[in-house]
Amino acid sequence: MTELTNALAFLREVDKLKAIARQTRVTFDPERRENDAEHSWHLAIMAIVLAEHGPRELDLLAVLRMVLVHDLVEIDAGDTFIYDDAHAASQAERERRAADRIFGLLDEPMRGELRGAWDEFEAGATPSATFARAIDRVQPILQNYYTDGASWRAHGITAAQVRAKNGPLVAAGAPELWAYVETLIGDSVTRGWLKP
Amino acid sequence: MTELTNALAFLREVDKLKAIARQTRVTFDPERRENDAEHSWHLAIMAIVLAEHGPRELDLLAVLRMVLVHDLVEIDAGDTFIYDDAHAASQAERERRAADRIFGLLDEPMRGELRGAWDEFEAGATPSATFARAIDRVQPILQNYYTDGASWRAHGITAAQVRAKNGPLVAAGAPELWAYVETLIGDSVTRGWLKP
Repeated sequence: MTELTNALAFLREVDKLKAIARQTRVTFDPERRENDAEHSWHLAIMAIVLAEHGPRELDLLAVLRMVLVHDLVEIDAGDTFIYDDAHAASQAERERRAADRIFGLLDEPMRGELRGAWDEFEAGATPSATFARAIDRVQPILQNYYTDGASWRAHGITAAQVRAKNGPLVAAGAPELWAYVETLIGDSVTRGWLKP
Repeated sequence: MTELTNALAFLREVDKLKAIARQTRVTFDPERRENDAEHSWHLAIMAIVLAEHGPRELDLLAVLRMVLVHDLVEIDAGDTFIYDDAHAASQAERERRAADRIFGLLDEPMRGELRGAWDEFEAGATPSATFARAIDRVQPILQNYYTDGASWRAHGITAAQVRAKNGPLVAAGAPELWAYVETLIGDSVTRGWLKP
């Protein structure tokens, strides 16, 4: 019963992910920032639908576990905007402490299973992790494109920044997706949503 | 490329799930209703963490697929409050039409795979579906309990209604969870969050 009680305490704690706002907007209201729970759900659907564009050795269940938990650390550490280099410096340490606390609410073996999924995502070394990290980068680019570059324009982001921050990761985990994203980046420059 | 274009059109369409408000509240703000995308993400985490309390034949990947897509039909059909019997009468037909349209955005075989997951959830006949349906009922009860019965009080719900609407389904898919929920229902009556 302790194990069930601890599992429910964890499930109550993670509800807070619904309060962590990202820079990315939802497509139906460019003023409304999406939160980490919505983003994580969207990634899970993407993983299922786009899995065939990932590495052949991809383990879909492992990908889903990773994308569903990858942002839980932001309950403590907050969301770090991908183009905010100053804030990114302290990000790894803040997020590791958060992982210790949040996954530590669970008993073993579930604690190790979910912490392992988070570690695997962060390390990005397995085929499943490269795909999970690729779609985590593609989703906000798509949302930006569908909202006329709402968060890019708010922060004056350039095409070179989008390519530098996302290109290597996305091309590694889902090369066909990166080829498609490149066309969106070009189009976004033409339309004035991204600085050249 | 058509297949990828159609997959991305589907992934853009399902973004609208983030706009479908439920009666359930988030734990950190009893005034704020959660939306279907947040709910679906929460169910996916619950499925992973509580799978050992489900049927022995449970297929976790199948459960995740079901809970991630089970509410997509509400993009067209809207959310039907579980205790709203009048509205429930037309629900099945509205939701079937929505499933035809939304899953129809995808090409085969993904269209059949996700439509099949939705059909499996609705039918509730497999061990994985009984578990998915059980946690779909438990999550709002937990959220209600953690918010001092916010949506129960708003609608004057009775303990008998909660038991009748949820007991058989939850007991079938996750009997230990139902035993735990029974203690929360009793406590909620004592505290005045549920009518006796």
